[in-house]
Amino acid sequence: MFTLYFAAHTCSLATHIVLEDVGAKFALKRIRFDRNEQRSPAYLEVNPKGRVPALATPHGILTETPAMLAFIAQSYPKARLAPLHDPFAFAEMQAFNSYLCSTLHVAHAHRMRGHRWADEAASFADMQRKVPQSVGACYDMIEARMLRGPWVMGSDYTVADPYLFTLARWLEEDGVDPARIPRVIAHRARMGERPNVKKAIAEELAD
Amino acid sequence: MFTLYFAAHTCSLATHIVLEDVGAKFALKRIRFDRNEQRSPAYLEVNPKGRVPALATPHGILTETPAMLAFIAQSYPKARLAPLHDPFAFAEMQAFNSYLCSTLHVAHAHRMRGHRWADEAASFADMQRKVPQSVGACYDMIEARMLRGPWVMGSDYTVADPYLFTLARWLEEDGVDPARIPRVIAHRARMGERPNVKKAIAEELAD
Repeated sequence: MFTLYFAAHTCSLATHIVLEDVGAKFALKRIRFDRNEQRSPAYLEVNPKGRVPALATPHGILTETPAMLAFIAQSYPKARLAPLHDPFAFAEMQAFNSYLCSTLHVAHAHRMRGHRWADEAASFADMQRKVPQSVGACYDMIEARMLRGPWVMGSDYTVADPYLFTLARWLEEDGVDPARIPRVIAHRARMGERPNVKKAIAEELAD
Repeated sequence: MFTLYFAAHTCSLATHIVLEDVGAKFALKRIRFDRNEQRSPAYLEVNPKGRVPALATPHGILTETPAMLAFIAQSYPKARLAPLHDPFAFAEMQAFNSYLCSTLHVAHAHRMRGHRWADEAASFADMQRKVPQSVGACYDMIEARMLRGPWVMGSDYTVADPYLFTLARWLEEDGVDPARIPRVIAHRARMGERPNVKKAIAEELAD
């Protein structure tokens, strides 16, 4: 039994989809950013970093999407959501997820969360102007060099697919022209048709 | 046989130390940032992202430090550099490494690499002023909530230790007062005494 601490419109959706994909028994706990609940004393007990997602497990609490996704895949080997018996292929999947968290998501965060790295309004505006370029460069890289197709790692669907899908939902708001990355957009559409994805999104939006 | 593409004073040191720790046979290939070699056509063939480190393996090329470190640990299980048979403990180690790459290293990068996320000189100056605070907050979190001691994950040395050590070498230049994070500093000193660490640093500085 897991509990996923999530917020709508955040990267917690990736873990939510994967929990559905493996058929895990889990509860959802909504953290409302509009009430700043991610900074509440109760939530800081769960995740002192004050971010979502966090995953309460029978062993303890996990944070950081790449680690959580790999953990779920390893905990449900029959679901075959990662190349668990091939360290190199597993590392390639982890490298993809690491790029999403440390480069793509970070570039995106400069549109709304510039206060993490600067203080002046003019800097925030400058960062926001750059987001179409910096996020766009990440998608160009994914389109041309990383997304194998039909799934991220090729013929096998893995936990990297819900993660890419989750971030790719934001690219129009980041000012990236979807016409330039047709393979990413086709992947997003393919993901959007999956029943577990529809279910997870509907649960996040219900309130 | 591996080849590690590295540059001095970068996070590639973490992978370098771990290659020494497992006793791998490997070659070093220096990428000179002062000649912009990370953007050369030859290196972009190795790593189209134009960054270090990259690890050429008999199976192909890997990038992204958390993925590379886990791959080396899995490839040399007898070295016991990760809790390979405990998915939760492995995920905790991966979460630590993910925090280093996506939060601590990113905060640090705003001191010298602001051009990734903004265009104006005033923004770069603003980002630089914020680095002691943003990087400092990461070290406060590591000091109080993440570093178990004596090693990152507790009694067992893992690949997370060389990674923290590598980034912690930069904290004074980032304006973080070492006096406020005595456990991080003690860990760094403990790491610095290890022969493999001394050897890796000496190799990076030789030219």
